[in-house]
Amino acid sequence: MSETTLEIEDGVAVFTLNRPEKMNAISQDMFNSDLPDMVARVTEDDDIRVLILAGAGGNFCSGADVSRMGGDEKPSPEERDNKLRGILDYLYKLVNLPKPVISAVDGIAFGGGFSLAVTADIVMATPRARFSLVFGRIGLIPDMTAAYVLPRLIGPQRTKELTFTARSFGVEEAMSMGIVQEVHEAEALLPAAKRMASQLSQGSATAMAEAKRLIDMSLQSSQAEMIDAECAAQLACRGTEFHGEAVRRFMTKEPRLYDWDAMSRKEAAE
Amino acid sequence: MSETTLEIEDGVAVFTLNRPEKMNAISQDMFNSDLPDMVARVTEDDDIRVLILAGAGGNFCSGADVSRMGGDEKPSPEERDNKLRGILDYLYKLVNLPKPVISAVDGIAFGGGFSLAVTADIVMATPRARFSLVFGRIGLIPDMTAAYVLPRLIGPQRTKELTFTARSFGVEEAMSMGIVQEVHEAEALLPAAKRMASQLSQGSATAMAEAKRLIDMSLQSSQAEMIDAECAAQLACRGTEFHGEAVRRFMTKEPRLYDWDAMSRKEAAE
Amino acid sequence: MSETTLEIEDGVAVFTLNRPEKMNAISQDMFNSDLPDMVARVTEDDDIRVLILAGAGGNFCSGADVSRMGGDEKPSPEERDNKLRGILDYLYKLVNLPKPVISAVDGIAFGGGFSLAVTADIVMATPRARFSLVFGRIGLIPDMTAAYVLPRLIGPQRTKELTFTARSFGVEEAMSMGIVQEVHEAEALLPAAKRMASQLSQGSATAMAEAKRLIDMSLQSSQAEMIDAECAAQLACRGTEFHGEAVRRFMTKEPRLYDWDAMSRKEAAE
Repeated sequence: MSETTLEIEDGVAVFTLNRPEKMNAISQDMFNSDLPDMVARVTEDDDIRVLILAGAGGNFCSGADVSRMGGDEKPSPEERDNKLRGILDYLYKLVNLPKPVISAVDGIAFGGGFSLAVTADIVMATPRARFSLVFGRIGLIPDMTAAYVLPRLIGPQRTKELTFTARSFGVEEAMSMGIVQEVHEAEALLPAAKRMASQLSQGSATAMAEAKRLIDMSLQSSQAEMIDAECAAQLACRGTEFHGEAVRRFMTKEPRLYDWDAMSRKEAAE
Repeated sequence: MSETTLEIEDGVAVFTLNRPEKMNAISQDMFNSDLPDMVARVTEDDDIRVLILAGAGGNFCSGADVSRMGGDEKPSPEERDNKLRGILDYLYKLVNLPKPVISAVDGIAFGGGFSLAVTADIVMATPRARFSLVFGRIGLIPDMTAAYVLPRLIGPQRTKELTFTARSFGVEEAMSMGIVQEVHEAEALLPAAKRMASQLSQGSATAMAEAKRLIDMSLQSSQAEMIDAECAAQLACRGTEFHGEAVRRFMTKEPRLYDWDAMSRKEAAE
Repeated sequence: MSETTLEIEDGVAVFTLNRPEKMNAISQDMFNSDLPDMVARVTEDDDIRVLILAGAGGNFCSGADVSRMGGDEKPSPEERDNKLRGILDYLYKLVNLPKPVISAVDGIAFGGGFSLAVTADIVMATPRARFSLVFGRIGLIPDMTAAYVLPRLIGPQRTKELTFTARSFGVEEAMSMGIVQEVHEAEALLPAAKRMASQLSQGSATAMAEAKRLIDMSLQSSQAEMIDAECAAQLACRGTEFHGEAVRRFMTKEPRLYDWDAMSRKEAAE
């Protein structure tokens, strides 16, 4: 059985870490092949509109598999550095993926599993989800993009406290910090993520890609850079078929092309 | 009747969008004249100490008037680009206005109306206020400075979710995200905004202008840049009459020149 | 009696402002000697693992002592500028201190006292703690690094409102804004800070120093800069004795070298 799966249906890709006996710890094979292959595939395949990251068997991911760390044949510092750079190369591509990404976190999201979860734009979790920047427990820094992503998500102060203590915490605290946006029971988690992904897949792919890039560059950009980027992005959006059709429907008072409020009302009524 | 009004009294300017039959949608005239003229006037007039942005007739603003978008004579991409740049030019001046700005949001603040509301430093709203980045509904990105302002106000993650879904949300969620700071009943909204503006107008205009600039440059600045800016700003403040008089009163134990806590206590007692 | 004390025990340094009759206002001597000497000492002394900032007699600090401000011999603008630069030089060293810093705030933390409190990574406070950016009351901007630190801690919007009004606020609002992380009764405050410091002192000093630097540079850094910094930092951590020993224990299933959850459970059981 493969250690990961990538299922694509109706524009939604679900990437599942599938080593439940190891709480989906990231193996060398996953680092070397599964993860980079998935990022490349999802980036290039225009039919994939939204990505979901999930874990099998009641946990999201317990982080990098450290059972090899203490082994006899230790890599040289240079080998380690090259390897981490390679991983960061595709993980930042995942952070910057020009499509909405949803993490569905059940159970453990520790260390690199926590880092992986927050590469997403939206995090859904279960009541039993549990998070920890365990890196500090073995004298390491939070890696796999966490030191870049978390200060933007929860602020530098909270990131420091979670890093220094490496303590674990539950879903309520994760929600109050803004790490988790929605909570669902375990059996309802993936369906909820798929429903949201399916709704998102009906929006304009161009607008979402352009908006995600703009929003992610905002904090570290000057106003002059943002003006240029905003004008270029809006110009690209105005040229899309989606925009033309959406405006046409607006003018003729036909049902909207993309209407989240109506989709949510319909879903609630069902 | 004009589409907007600018009333100035005791150092407080109230700019009101006044097309209630269109939920105060921003017309071409407003884009071309009312808004840029208002920004220029408020920037230059030293007698204006605080600006309030408001809407007439139970709504703040439903955004750019798109009823022209589907028209026959479509502007060229270059014309669109020039127009958006012109709008952004004065909207960033509004974002950077060296005076406190308060938005008073009743009813709808959608699309460009949402963008306009959050150019302010402080947002007050009513229980029926409703917000949406509707741009995504017609395949556009949030423009009119929203992609710059919102990540600084509510973080990139929340901005992305609101952008991707383009869903509408009420005042409680807006408060919990930090978009809205105070809620007042509809009839009490403008009086509350004016009272706050009036109190703010009694502080040091120099200190507020310098502080606003410093705080707004902080996130994207290095510590060395902040040291230079802080020293220059404090030097400017120490040279003001306001500072001299405030320190003199402090020494002689006379009533303070500017005392928010006392003003609030007095107001509560009335 | 000295105006400040620095007590060092078991790797934890407690720096206490000790002018209770002046609510621990920062005197010229404290600005010129006590504070810079403390920062230099704590930076250089490898035996100090964690720093606690505290105030004696029921208050944290009422800010810079302004009783000299109105005096006859006023410093020239150039002298003022040089003095502020000197203060900022060591205060930014405190902000960047490569060790965890905890503030223990009882009573008043006003003006420069507020600024000083939030140079820390973690702020603990008592129910009667009270905060105010009083600078605006005498027409000044928030200085002593507050204009750098606060937008990163609570966002630019909230910083502006607190700056413009210069109003005072209590510990509940401070918690909801993210300024205060833990509340303890007055007599339990310093013990709680020391307990946390003691637990933190058992972690990897290298990992905490590297992580703090990474997290603090994150917001204003590009992804390329973060990749370089993350790789260099992790390489440094992997070379430490702490990491080697922590991994060895993990492999042999011996008790962990640093386990916050276990320490907290043990403490709760006592």
